[in-house]
Amino acid sequence: MELQQMSAASAFTQHHHPSPIPHHSSDIRTYRYPARRRSLSPQPERTPPKRARLLLRKRSVSMSPHRTHSLSLVDREAGEGDWNMPEERVGTLERLRRSTVVSQSDIHETITHPGTVRINVQGAFIVDDEEPATPQSEDYEHDPRDIRLPNHTAVVSHIAVDIGGSLAKLVYFSREPDSTLDGGRLNFLKFETEKIDACIDFMKGLQAKHERANGPSELCIMATGGGAFKFYDRIREALGVEVVQEDEMECLIIGLDFFITEIPGEVFTYSETSPMSFIPFPPQPPSIYPYLLVNIGSGVSMIKVTGPREHQRIGGTSLGGGTLWGLLSLLTGARNFDEMLSLADRGDNTAVDMLVGDIYGMDYGKIGLKSTTIASSFGKVYRLKRAAEREAEDNGGFSDDGDMAETPSAQDPPTNSPLLPSDAKSSSPTAHPAPTTHSTHFRPEDISRSLLYAVSNNIGQIAYLHAEKHKLQNIYFGGSFIGGHAQTMNTLSYAINFWSKGTKQAYFLRHEGYLGAVGAFLKRQPRNWGRRGSFDGRAEH
Amino acid sequence: MELQQMSAASAFTQHHHPSPIPHHSSDIRTYRYPARRRSLSPQPERTPPKRARLLLRKRSVSMSPHRTHSLSLVDREAGEGDWNMPEERVGTLERLRRSTVVSQSDIHETITHPGTVRINVQGAFIVDDEEPATPQSEDYEHDPRDIRLPNHTAVVSHIAVDIGGSLAKLVYFSREPDSTLDGGRLNFLKFETEKIDACIDFMKGLQAKHERANGPSELCIMATGGGAFKFYDRIREALGVEVVQEDEMECLIIGLDFFITEIPGEVFTYSETSPMSFIPFPPQPPSIYPYLLVNIGSGVSMIKVTGPREHQRIGGTSLGGGTLWGLLSLLTGARNFDEMLSLADRGDNTAVDMLVGDIYGMDYGKIGLKSTTIASSFGKVYRLKRAAEREAEDNGGFSDDGDMAETPSAQDPPTNSPLLPSDAKSSSPTAHPAPTTHSTHFRPEDISRSLLYAVSNNIGQIAYLHAEKHKLQNIYFGGSFIGGHAQTMNTLSYAINFWSKGTKQAYFLRHEGYLGAVGAFLKRQPRNWGRRGSFDGRAEH
Repeated sequence: MELQQMSAASAFTQHHHPSPIPHHSSDIRTYRYPARRRSLSPQPERTPPKRARLLLRKRSVSMSPHRTHSLSLVDREAGEGDWNMPEERVGTLERLRRSTVVSQSDIHETITHPGTVRINVQGAFIVDDEEPATPQSEDYEHDPRDIRLPNHTAVVSHIAVDIGGSLAKLVYFSREPDSTLDGGRLNFLKFETEKIDACIDFMKGLQAKHERANGPSELCIMATGGGAFKFYDRIREALGVEVVQEDEMECLIIGLDFFITEIPGEVFTYSETSPMSFIPFPPQPPSIYPYLLVNIGSGVSMIKVTGPREHQRIGGTSLGGGTLWGLLSLLTGARNFDEMLSLADRGDNTAVDMLVGDIYGMDYGKIGLKSTTIASSFGKVYRLKRAAEREAEDNGGFSDDGDMAETPSAQDPPTNSPLLPSDAKSSSPTAHPAPTTHSTHFRPEDISRSLLYAVSNNIGQIAYLHAEKHKLQNIYFGGSFIGGHAQTMNTLSYAINFWSKGTKQAYFLRHEGYLGAVGAFLKRQPRNWGRRGSFDGRAEH
Repeated sequence: MELQQMSAASAFTQHHHPSPIPHHSSDIRTYRYPARRRSLSPQPERTPPKRARLLLRKRSVSMSPHRTHSLSLVDREAGEGDWNMPEERVGTLERLRRSTVVSQSDIHETITHPGTVRINVQGAFIVDDEEPATPQSEDYEHDPRDIRLPNHTAVVSHIAVDIGGSLAKLVYFSREPDSTLDGGRLNFLKFETEKIDACIDFMKGLQAKHERANGPSELCIMATGGGAFKFYDRIREALGVEVVQEDEMECLIIGLDFFITEIPGEVFTYSETSPMSFIPFPPQPPSIYPYLLVNIGSGVSMIKVTGPREHQRIGGTSLGGGTLWGLLSLLTGARNFDEMLSLADRGDNTAVDMLVGDIYGMDYGKIGLKSTTIASSFGKVYRLKRAAEREAEDNGGFSDDGDMAETPSAQDPPTNSPLLPSDAKSSSPTAHPAPTTHSTHFRPEDISRSLLYAVSNNIGQIAYLHAEKHKLQNIYFGGSFIGGHAQTMNTLSYAINFWSKGTKQAYFLRHEGYLGAVGAFLKRQPRNWGRRGSFDGRAEH
């Protein structure tokens, strides 16, 4: 079985399917990642959006950032959309079958083989939302970058959820509201796992809609991640349907394979000088294997992938997103991931990190360590904090009132920004009253940046070492930890490049948090499906 | 040159030198590490010791833990000691030359070649202090485990200091105070690098004593570590003598080689069931190379050693002792390393760490992850903290008064110890008034244990991966981070064993913090010196 898969991979050929979207198959397009807010918590400064608003969006549809087209939807399920489309695009779409009528065979298929429907991914592309402020719910975040599946016509009788330690990711298919349009789109939502009941409620809503649209067919839940096991009974009881548990690692790599091979403008490399360079599409060379997937959620898993569905978890580390979020929620006033990243963006890690220059007073040239290399993350904190405490004691007892200025030892002045009293209150809009302990003598910005560097660098190094051990050149970083954050990607990418001396390449994805959910959504596909041997594609050759 | 060193290593043969101490060359001795306090900060509950007290010790001299002998010293430099010795031992010592007279040639040698005196390490052994409470200074900690050099008679005209980012380690030779005894001992002191002036003052004192004993000969300073460069001018000006800068990595491996090959009862393995198993001495097989040295100070260096003085720094991580000390000083009331370790000993990391079982509700058996495996260090914190904040908000605004009880989500009760209000105040005797922010809703003990695990595990994994890459089987852990702490050694050892599936071995040392300082002290030795080809030894063969 596994050998057959290998052969399929070796026999991989490029198909150019009819598609409304031109393929940029050989040029690397550089694209500025659009600013966007990610929030996993209530945003008191915004009016809580009503449910209806979620479905009222002004959208832009674009495959490449250079081509945007406006699309206003009134109701994504009910139609009445308005599709402003240039001439050439309408022409392409004309070639597509327009029917959205549900066939009896489709229904039969979904009933007898839940989750096994063939998803037609031909011509799939990313839909970028024009408005950065996607309508938010208090319960979840709806990723603005849906994936259009213009050629999928069959009924989709399943939704997929990947429930991790911190976040539950939901992927479902919805019809385009405009009945003149074929296909539909994949929607991406995330909930805090803590609010799993809100996630279950949302799935209930989808279930109800599904029944309204398709009659009494059953919506199947494809579930992966640890929560697929932990919350199995709860989901099943609440929805009264079959919950199919899928292996987490398998889903991750199915999802990643899909993104690499089917979605143009999904995979990119990152560097400071070239922030987002999309890889040529379809991928060159055609064989994408072997590669290393580093999935960074609460913890980190490293999976060696040698072919379609051929994988092995070769390592991991407990120092992941959960570590950053947990420690920063203790150390700074930040109350959500967004605020933490925003703090890190404004921070100066050298106020808390001990650099080689702090120890040597210069480079340690003999072994190639620059004076600016971080020798010890948070390595300055203990000394500075002790010095301040001693001074406070000398001045008549320890002061805990929060306005004690940190005074570095006179004999060893820090080379960088002096430590200022916390400005957590002013810098993070939703922060609660600033904490008043010693911990705030260090700026939350500097602490955030230091910890972000430390965690990212560490993952980068361990990823490199595992890739080295298993002779893997390409390293894909997935997981919600990354969150499209420039500093994080830059650090990971830099670490891979640094340790491998440029021999290994880090890749990132625009849907990095949804590998597992998409994998669960797509898992029960026929072999040789999609661009690498789509059932439609094969018919053409 | 390097090839010659290799040949010397290959030609390594075992010599059994005359020594007052029997060699246990083939048995592994298991020994319970004696409880001891390490303190790098003022201990208000103790009377600050006067300088004279340092030299007034009741000591036990032992090579193996089964043989202890009392020794009372009045003044280690001036003599008048009282050596209570069993008969057979006196007999052995009788064979040694008793002269401590300084020869003119010795003095000439030290003047013309500072630091090049041959240290006779024959029969060296560890002196264990009987009293756990070694007289402490506010400025430094004097390690109770001196090393006796019973056969060294020449004047030693140098001292050695290894100045790292957090700690400065000092090694010097002193005569046995009892004039009937030959040789002397190596003393081990550490200062906080912040108090480098106290270290320099101490060296000044040694300089004065040296001149009183040996006339106008100059005491040379062998300096290594980053501070050898950073504080070069300051040391030179303060002491008015030559400061010889030595490369840090080179000193580390010279020091380690010395401990491995010359000091019985120095190197041991660690496991929960067999806490301290000393390796056979002299080491078997005779060739100790190649090996990996993992030196954990503020940061971590990993050095591949392929022969005497043949080494290469192959990696490192910024997540080291400085990270632990820095973060724990922010997160707990602990004000020194001892308190942090003591907190960790009483902690339950599962109150803050997210385990595989917390995510899956069970093992993730398919990939071999037990439910008790840590999936995410501090992975529970963000969720629990947010839940408490929400509840506080629901109860009429956020409370920051420190007595808000953390209430885990009802739908996902933690499997382990409920979070209690901080007891930092009661648990750490020198703690200042307990901090009043949210950070204290998590027990300092649990936070300390979690972070100690995280840092140690991480170092263990990276060490394993580097060892794997370079095909190294033996991994020595050095550096002040370890501090003889059982949990730390157990975690490092467990990590090596786990990742390597038992194919690699972790080793520890009783003088783990002094590799660099001892290396600097010994660096200018003739080739083929010591047991592996001692100049004395060679005369016998």
